[in-house]
Amino acid sequence: MSERSGRAPGGHVAVLGAGSWGTAFAKVLADAGNEVTIWSRREQVAATIRATGTNPDYLPGLRLPANVTATADAGKAISGAWLVVLAVPSQTLRGNLAEWASFVGPDATLVSLMKGIELGTTKRMSQVIVETAGVAADRVVVVSGPNLAPEIAAGQPAATVVACTDTDRATLVQNAVTTSYFRPYTNGDVIGTELGGAVKNVIALAYGIATAMRLGDNTKATLITRGLAETARLGVALGADPLTFAGLAGLGDLVGTCTSPLSRNRTFGEHLGRGESLEQAQAATRQTAEGVKSCLAIRDLARAHGVEMPITEQVERVCHEGVDPRVALTALMSRTTKPE
Amino acid sequence: MSERSGRAPGGHVAVLGAGSWGTAFAKVLADAGNEVTIWSRREQVAATIRATGTNPDYLPGLRLPANVTATADAGKAISGAWLVVLAVPSQTLRGNLAEWASFVGPDATLVSLMKGIELGTTKRMSQVIVETAGVAADRVVVVSGPNLAPEIAAGQPAATVVACTDTDRATLVQNAVTTSYFRPYTNGDVIGTELGGAVKNVIALAYGIATAMRLGDNTKATLITRGLAETARLGVALGADPLTFAGLAGLGDLVGTCTSPLSRNRTFGEHLGRGESLEQAQAATRQTAEGVKSCLAIRDLARAHGVEMPITEQVERVCHEGVDPRVALTALMSRTTKPE
Repeated sequence: MSERSGRAPGGHVAVLGAGSWGTAFAKVLADAGNEVTIWSRREQVAATIRATGTNPDYLPGLRLPANVTATADAGKAISGAWLVVLAVPSQTLRGNLAEWASFVGPDATLVSLMKGIELGTTKRMSQVIVETAGVAADRVVVVSGPNLAPEIAAGQPAATVVACTDTDRATLVQNAVTTSYFRPYTNGDVIGTELGGAVKNVIALAYGIATAMRLGDNTKATLITRGLAETARLGVALGADPLTFAGLAGLGDLVGTCTSPLSRNRTFGEHLGRGESLEQAQAATRQTAEGVKSCLAIRDLARAHGVEMPITEQVERVCHEGVDPRVALTALMSRTTKPE
Repeated sequence: MSERSGRAPGGHVAVLGAGSWGTAFAKVLADAGNEVTIWSRREQVAATIRATGTNPDYLPGLRLPANVTATADAGKAISGAWLVVLAVPSQTLRGNLAEWASFVGPDATLVSLMKGIELGTTKRMSQVIVETAGVAADRVVVVSGPNLAPEIAAGQPAATVVACTDTDRATLVQNAVTTSYFRPYTNGDVIGTELGGAVKNVIALAYGIATAMRLGDNTKATLITRGLAETARLGVALGADPLTFAGLAGLGDLVGTCTSPLSRNRTFGEHLGRGESLEQAQAATRQTAEGVKSCLAIRDLARAHGVEMPITEQVERVCHEGVDPRVALTALMSRTTKPE
């Protein structure tokens, strides 16, 4: 598709999913000059966006630009869109996209905003997209980085990674989402970009547990360092470029998520660290903490590739095997000395 | 020295410098079973340590173990010490060590806790030690990592890097400072370990400025990511192993220092970010912010090696050329999009 690199094709763009990141990304797309249609599962959310330009359930205070509309009819949103942005909960992607695939245009670009690994299959979101939509892998673009949605909705400066095996398509999406406050950098490493986003949610759960346990900043910095190391180990085993993990989609996203009180995975971890059960934490936070589900799939993926991921192992035990988070974290922090 | 690897030679250990890190490290050494003599420039501090086992000016609340004593006589501290730990302000090392060199035993190991680059010479602390004490480079060990002194003094768990070109000597020091709460990891990369510690102080100044300017967590995570990238660029140009920067002495120390309110460099940056002059910030914080001086030397080092360090450049302009930190940080954050 190099013949039209850098120029957006005609037509609108669709954002599938009206959660906080989908909605904030719709604002970025609109501010960059695109006509945007958001799809929401709930008609009431779509109607509110159409009538008031707001999505108070997910981003209270945000006013969407006039070139954003919304619908609960996915076919209507996707048909004619040159860019189809997928921002649904990771574990619902396959089911949703199976229903939507027939509406996707023959050269439309599919963008994944999702940061999870599919349970059961242990597949990355771009793999699920390729399989379910029946498109070539070079039509799928992954956007990931330190992108806390409320800050982007507020126009705070942020940078991100736009990854695609097709450089021209990455550049096309880069141009379609560049604004004064949102700076996308292209990258050819789809695997690394996706893994950075998925595993950081699991590490952020551990960081939240550590925060609730009042562990010190030295310990928490060590947790981030070792968390990135185990992410990179898995990534390299799966064919990622190790340098991706030193960049915005690795280190950047991990640090942003761990250190921000706006992060839902960190917040969820804090609930667990205070001794709440999974059910209590879910009830208290309401939003989805992707890491709670992904930790299972990431652990399975690591085991299948013979990769040691001690933090992920402990988070999985806390979330799904009833292990006391204080016991799990203490086990993690008292490993024997050795060369780094 | 492999014939006695892992076993500490007889005699005591000396810690030169009774600041917060020197004092906390003396506690670690004492808790690990060593007889420790702290040297303080001020007799009054030494007398207080001897009389009360405390150093209230630097670590209020800490009670030193009984096997720690103190003196203001450096010759007495160093003579007979098998381990000589240097913990003075970076820019005073050469002058101090020139006076002390004759007391250092013929096979004593010299340990650097200092995280700075010498002004004028642009030398790392281990280089200054080799030159000034007239010892072989493989007798110098660098200890660096996410080690905020007040947390270590409180016995909070922390990990660190013990770097030496002589693996046996690194292991010797590792064993001499291993306690239940302090976990040292050996590493052969002295250059990378030292640069991680020195440059992180400069990045922490920028992070403090960003914090005072109320920039968001996305932006601050990007600052950490780019800060580590420019550190690694300089390191690789100087012969460091790029992997060191992904470890505790790189990423770990950088994250710990930037995110902790206990960090004096970050705190100093917050004063600057609120519009205070260098003099006002110095008056308000009282302790030395190493990054203020080191940023000059690091910038010179980078220029001499043709390495781009945009964050360091801007911090230097804020600290020493009167540039408004808000102007400097905005310049930094609005660079054009490109491949990562």
